[in-house]
Amino acid sequence: VSDAARLPSWRPGKARNAIVRFLGDAESVPRDERVACFDNDGTLCCEQPTYIQYEFFVDALRRRLASDASLRTRAEFAAVLGNDPAEIAAIGLERIALALAGLFEGLAPEAFAAEVRDFMTTATHRRLGRPMREVVYQPMLELLDELRALDFTIAIVTGGGTEFVRAISNALYGTPAELVVGTLIAYDFTRAPDGIQLRRTARVLGDANEGAAKVTNIQTQLGRRPIIAAGNSAGDQEMLAWATNTTRANLALVIDHDDAEREYAYESRSATLGETEAITAVAKRNGWTAVSMADDWSTVFR
Amino acid sequence: VSDAARLPSWRPGKARNAIVRFLGDAESVPRDERVACFDNDGTLCCEQPTYIQYEFFVDALRRRLASDASLRTRAEFAAVLGNDPAEIAAIGLERIALALAGLFEGLAPEAFAAEVRDFMTTATHRRLGRPMREVVYQPMLELLDELRALDFTIAIVTGGGTEFVRAISNALYGTPAELVVGTLIAYDFTRAPDGIQLRRTARVLGDANEGAAKVTNIQTQLGRRPIIAAGNSAGDQEMLAWATNTTRANLALVIDHDDAEREYAYESRSATLGETEAITAVAKRNGWTAVSMADDWSTVFR
Repeated sequence: VSDAARLPSWRPGKARNAIVRFLGDAESVPRDERVACFDNDGTLCCEQPTYIQYEFFVDALRRRLASDASLRTRAEFAAVLGNDPAEIAAIGLERIALALAGLFEGLAPEAFAAEVRDFMTTATHRRLGRPMREVVYQPMLELLDELRALDFTIAIVTGGGTEFVRAISNALYGTPAELVVGTLIAYDFTRAPDGIQLRRTARVLGDANEGAAKVTNIQTQLGRRPIIAAGNSAGDQEMLAWATNTTRANLALVIDHDDAEREYAYESRSATLGETEAITAVAKRNGWTAVSMADDWSTVFR
Repeated sequence: VSDAARLPSWRPGKARNAIVRFLGDAESVPRDERVACFDNDGTLCCEQPTYIQYEFFVDALRRRLASDASLRTRAEFAAVLGNDPAEIAAIGLERIALALAGLFEGLAPEAFAAEVRDFMTTATHRRLGRPMREVVYQPMLELLDELRALDFTIAIVTGGGTEFVRAISNALYGTPAELVVGTLIAYDFTRAPDGIQLRRTARVLGDANEGAAKVTNIQTQLGRRPIIAAGNSAGDQEMLAWATNTTRANLALVIDHDDAEREYAYESRSATLGETEAITAVAKRNGWTAVSMADDWSTVFR
């Protein structure tokens, strides 16, 4: 395939050049070091106005209200149903996410996955006017295909729920469950009359998969370091730095959401230096490759 | 390939028949449910007179003694060097294993893996008179090949150290790092002048990967349940029960070490019922398939 025919949704420019150069260099990297780690929300798929997982949680809450109206009275759920940003901020997104995850307590892993898949079959993104399963970035899918052609092991390293992303990762990205590293819910192991069962708890196992945890979890769960990583927010910085701290060919990509017309325009900021700094400034300072959605992508969605 | 030409190191009999039947039935199982989980020590490779990992640890201890003779005075190491079973039992294998794992505290993951690979290049199994990397069971390698031909995802689920097995899993079994689930050592994340570093600690992350932990760790780390599992000791029972608690085609194999001539004859016993019970009796009670090393395997080692 000629260079011009590859990555058809990437416009000529610095970002595309950096990718094509990396793909060429990667051919001389030993196969078992060809590892790629991609953040999910905002990197492989749209994360606005809220995370897809959050939409799924709210949908699940609404369905459960039909049989248990008392859920309305819980502060976390009232804030969610009221859709009041100030109230949600006051309670804290982490506490709200835990409360929402608790809606699935007691479920077998297969039952949870089935509920996620049902949601993804029918849910639509209202502002974008397309099925939720199609708010995935076409240029990134093309990059995954190029990496797969080079026998890369491709992992999704998400701050979101591991099991949520696993339920859709194969259909959306061709990524099997064991290559999803995210925030884990612990399971209870029980010996029921009909055999061993695993049931979801409402407890997070270890730390939320953001920042430094992304790096340690890549090592403990995958056992190999990436030479290419992509992200879009402060929680991806450590993973991007880790991927580039090697003598091998390497590439760090930062998606810049600067396309209010086709997607959203917003700035992810890092607060690691006391003051906040735009993730694009962090990228520039570290020599990472910024990807302008507006300029570098001829097509946004699959 | 005709049935007779498959699995050439398996003698005709009940075990081989059960495997061939399972492989046929598995063809109608959806591809993403074709998951296999194999214990390592005593199931894929020889675990007598001690685990390969223990031999590696002792070798590392001896090498470190050359530069730090004071290690001799630590009770755990004195017991190991004295090779006194009573003393080792008095201290407890878990405490000894933790002390030995502590020899590698501060190492980067790649440095630890390199040390393991160096050991495996030169170590020999004295009684068996063959390289340590060749005390792997040929019939099990043939089974892995058959499963791979059916696109099974094959995981190694070991009570041993995850990173130890990862360092050799590709060379020994064709299994990539992310498909090894074992006992994990935690890492320290540090920002050094030369970039982010991960360093081994002496702390175990979560529980040792035995018994019920094998089942919960399969779910959290792999995200899919096996329909075939193989083991040889009490710590594999829950995994074997989990693999067979499905309406899909399934198979649980228990390796019976009954071959004093070609390998070792010893009985793994389960203590879960208060009294101890041979793992072969547990297998019979559960309808699992026992594999007699003496009777079912025409060749033992690769």
